[in-house]
Amino acid sequence: MEVGFIGAGRMGLAMLRNLVEAGHRVHVWDASEAAVGAAVAAGGIGASSARDALRGDAVVSMLPNDAAMRGVFTDDLLAAAPKGLVHVNMATASLACAQALTALHGRHGIAYVAAPVFGRPEMAARRELNIMAAGPAAAIDRVQPLFDAIGRKTWRLGDDPTRANVTKIAGNLLVACVIESLGEAAALARAYDMPPADLLGVVVGSLFDVPIFRIYADLVAHQRFEPAGFDLELGLKDARLALAAGEAANLPLPFASVLRDNYLDALAHGAGHQDWSAVTGVALRRAGLDAA
Amino acid sequence: MEVGFIGAGRMGLAMLRNLVEAGHRVHVWDASEAAVGAAVAAGGIGASSARDALRGDAVVSMLPNDAAMRGVFTDDLLAAAPKGLVHVNMATASLACAQALTALHGRHGIAYVAAPVFGRPEMAARRELNIMAAGPAAAIDRVQPLFDAIGRKTWRLGDDPTRANVTKIAGNLLVACVIESLGEAAALARAYDMPPADLLGVVVGSLFDVPIFRIYADLVAHQRFEPAGFDLELGLKDARLALAAGEAANLPLPFASVLRDNYLDALAHGAGHQDWSAVTGVALRRAGLDAA
Amino acid sequence: MEVGFIGAGRMGLAMLRNLVEAGHRVHVWDASEAAVGAAVAAGGIGASSARDALRGDAVVSMLPNDAAMRGVFTDDLLAAAPKGLVHVNMATASLACAQALTALHGRHGIAYVAAPVFGRPEMAARRELNIMAAGPAAAIDRVQPLFDAIGRKTWRLGDDPTRANVTKIAGNLLVACVIESLGEAAALARAYDMPPADLLGVVVGSLFDVPIFRIYADLVAHQRFEPAGFDLELGLKDARLALAAGEAANLPLPFASVLRDNYLDALAHGAGHQDWSAVTGVALRRAGLDAA
Amino acid sequence: MEVGFIGAGRMGLAMLRNLVEAGHRVHVWDASEAAVGAAVAAGGIGASSARDALRGDAVVSMLPNDAAMRGVFTDDLLAAAPKGLVHVNMATASLACAQALTALHGRHGIAYVAAPVFGRPEMAARRELNIMAAGPAAAIDRVQPLFDAIGRKTWRLGDDPTRANVTKIAGNLLVACVIESLGEAAALARAYDMPPADLLGVVVGSLFDVPIFRIYADLVAHQRFEPAGFDLELGLKDARLALAAGEAANLPLPFASVLRDNYLDALAHGAGHQDWSAVTGVALRRAGLDAA
Repeated sequence: MEVGFIGAGRMGLAMLRNLVEAGHRVHVWDASEAAVGAAVAAGGIGASSARDALRGDAVVSMLPNDAAMRGVFTDDLLAAAPKGLVHVNMATASLACAQALTALHGRHGIAYVAAPVFGRPEMAARRELNIMAAGPAAAIDRVQPLFDAIGRKTWRLGDDPTRANVTKIAGNLLVACVIESLGEAAALARAYDMPPADLLGVVVGSLFDVPIFRIYADLVAHQRFEPAGFDLELGLKDARLALAAGEAANLPLPFASVLRDNYLDALAHGAGHQDWSAVTGVALRRAGLDAA
Repeated sequence: MEVGFIGAGRMGLAMLRNLVEAGHRVHVWDASEAAVGAAVAAGGIGASSARDALRGDAVVSMLPNDAAMRGVFTDDLLAAAPKGLVHVNMATASLACAQALTALHGRHGIAYVAAPVFGRPEMAARRELNIMAAGPAAAIDRVQPLFDAIGRKTWRLGDDPTRANVTKIAGNLLVACVIESLGEAAALARAYDMPPADLLGVVVGSLFDVPIFRIYADLVAHQRFEPAGFDLELGLKDARLALAAGEAANLPLPFASVLRDNYLDALAHGAGHQDWSAVTGVALRRAGLDAA
Repeated sequence: MEVGFIGAGRMGLAMLRNLVEAGHRVHVWDASEAAVGAAVAAGGIGASSARDALRGDAVVSMLPNDAAMRGVFTDDLLAAAPKGLVHVNMATASLACAQALTALHGRHGIAYVAAPVFGRPEMAARRELNIMAAGPAAAIDRVQPLFDAIGRKTWRLGDDPTRANVTKIAGNLLVACVIESLGEAAALARAYDMPPADLLGVVVGSLFDVPIFRIYADLVAHQRFEPAGFDLELGLKDARLALAAGEAANLPLPFASVLRDNYLDALAHGAGHQDWSAVTGVALRRAGLDAA
Repeated sequence: MEVGFIGAGRMGLAMLRNLVEAGHRVHVWDASEAAVGAAVAAGGIGASSARDALRGDAVVSMLPNDAAMRGVFTDDLLAAAPKGLVHVNMATASLACAQALTALHGRHGIAYVAAPVFGRPEMAARRELNIMAAGPAAAIDRVQPLFDAIGRKTWRLGDDPTRANVTKIAGNLLVACVIESLGEAAALARAYDMPPADLLGVVVGSLFDVPIFRIYADLVAHQRFEPAGFDLELGLKDARLALAAGEAANLPLPFASVLRDNYLDALAHGAGHQDWSAVTGVALRRAGLDAA
């Protein structure tokens, strides 16, 4: 297929590489010229503007935050889009942004598919992403070859693009809660002079024997938060997305409220660029168990 | 082996049955005559008193709560125990009780092994329990054949019996947190008119593909809490054990505090004898999403 | 003095009336023509635009929210302001907005005084407002006659306008916490079949014998939330201001987090336009004590 | 009147002194001989046992905790009490203890009045206590002269002694919540480089101008927690009484849960014997604002 690609950061670049490898022609644009350069080196075709990247069958976007998405996908840009183009937005968006983008594309008659993913750049590189896709069925069908080039599995969630975003936000909340829970369990171990790795080893080995638990149990048990797989300040951002989604629906999410407070505590102690599992240092510090 | 068995409730009976089947001679006592009757029907040998059950190599106990353990295992009883007996306590105990029992057995020179389990009666029946054993290594070695008859795996946690209890309490806390987290995720789905089963299906299928997640995601998605696998009022009891363990060590456990408050809310709405995953109804009710 | 006045809602109108009564000439503008009409009926002089209201020595503004403040006080407006004008902003603003307005006025060389108040419209009418004023000392000195016409007391908080906003936000948080606390106390009374008015009467009479406690204890004891003195949805807005102020400084405010969750619960149960003390119905409902 | 007095700690001694000064004959017993000695020096008449102190019209007790109350007021003691004696229990008791004592006295036909107080030893010395009395009206009438000698005011709360205990527990919860709220407000001030005393001065002066607010605002603003007026570890005990009262009635008290967690944090950082307002240091420490 011939496609556009907007937003070639770490995650976007890994996706683009897989698209190229699968034989797709990818016109790439990013606000950073260096990012475009790297994407071209990876086999992409440089586009001179976002508008210039709206070609072929679909445009995939992987922009870093709501503001970037709203800044790039404007009425002006969409008015200039070729008829029949599908926009596949694979980034994590707030529900407010997701709803606004859905409405915006609707006004311009452009098919809009929300397709956020579970997985980090190294998993993107290995085509191990889980893709949550929601939007018009025909549009998803058309871009399925792109998903096949990028991910391990596509989970289809119906016509309303927002559902994919809700699922992404809720999934991240679940992972964050698992991490905090591992931290409280590890703190109990420490409080009773027991190596956290022993305690978590048993619990994870018995009940939760999946990679995500094993990985985080290891980081938490040894309080090893560098290098960061996912920055703690992004964890706070995700907690805020969940809280905002809840707030807009009058839904209290008390675990998310605890997470938010603990991320702030961690940030105040310099953990913003540590792995987000550094939030588990908060329980230890509060109990005076943080000294070596 | 020839062993005693004290406490033949649902869980104890399932264990005893497996011990008998593995060829052990089991002298059983319970405060309830009916329970002794059922145990005898299952192949146990009725004992006339707790003291009468202290025979052979070891006595296994599976009593329902701290008060029962402290009421049965008294100075008087232990003074009457045969020399060399090992006491294997497989019940969930508070840390205060665990520490008191360890000290008590120490004074009487009786080897004490704490060996709580992960698993419910039907898993006990299928020998699928995970056993966490802590206590003198030689004593654990001696009772290992009993564990082999009962469980899928024995996790050894060192000399201090309390460590097995800390691990059990922390493990239950983790499971409880997972359930609450699934509930908050499901509530987000409901708040955005999405079937919770769709959202949880993706998240669990992508990231958490283990039985315990699949089972609870299903209960939570369909808010199906009867029959109870584990009563919610026991969930509150477990949260209290975690909070008490934290409190004794000046360790705040904010997720456990949220759980406690939510269990009380659920109890106030009649869920005490529903499955403990009924705690996830609280988020829905608070958001006005509980009406059909 | 000759002054401008922008924003003549319920609160603004009450202030304006007192300014007029004290002999000041007040040029009033509001986005609503009806509001201007009411202000003119109260003795104000109608202005045709915000710009037309920038006259004389000072302009007082009392706009309903951040967006309105940012929408009215733009670079264009300030560029057109007469030299030497003092802008006195008496509304409740977020800290982000407060900081932006301080910077904006600085760029245009317009003296900016933040002067939010404690008090509701009926207190404004009776000149019982407490005014928190921060900004350049000379500017505050110049507008002090206006404060004298409006309030019971002016509390001066230094040169940095933001301090007045922090104080307003923190003060509202304190009142909200008092209300929630009265609610938890009242719920304990109800849980033990005791009239909440009896319990709160003793506690308030003994320890907290000030009007604000007496007023809210009465509303809470009798769960009487209509007519609203201050809408619950504005209470949520204020909790959000406190949380945002905390978040920007990496400061967890756990009471504010509880308040937020409880306001959402109350909103989900239809209390958005009840008095914000209706948040105390949440504890009763969660405990199943809400039925008559 | 001729009365007994059991429990002559700091608070009890101050009360006894006032009883003696008012002309009552007071037979005093305490488990500590030194305490009895001090009470005799203050004009009391030493009793050789709790039983020996059950004389005259009434016995006042002021024991330090539930265990002491249950240990002294046993079936044996009450069986030996003179007919017509009134027991006035002025200590803070858990509701479980209060209910048990009410039942116990009922079985022995001894009139039981619960009469806990608001106030600290120095207020007791100055007869400034607020006394909450509940129990049989005739019994309260008979001991009113004792209350008149001790307190500023007696608040009568009906026939059920438990009501006085609920009120005491709820009142302490309210004070604790006020302190935490002052702490969150002060932390906001610190986070924005503003002296907390300035912020709290305005808020307390405007809205909460009563001694209890002024006193704690001053301690909190200057983080001055020694000498302790009321030990933080007793604050934790009081929070536990509130939580236990709530738990027994399926009533979540989220502010009390936050308080508990924060007291633990403070205890872990050595504040157990500081004033309970030291709990406000937790917010500062969590935000990294604790360094001088």
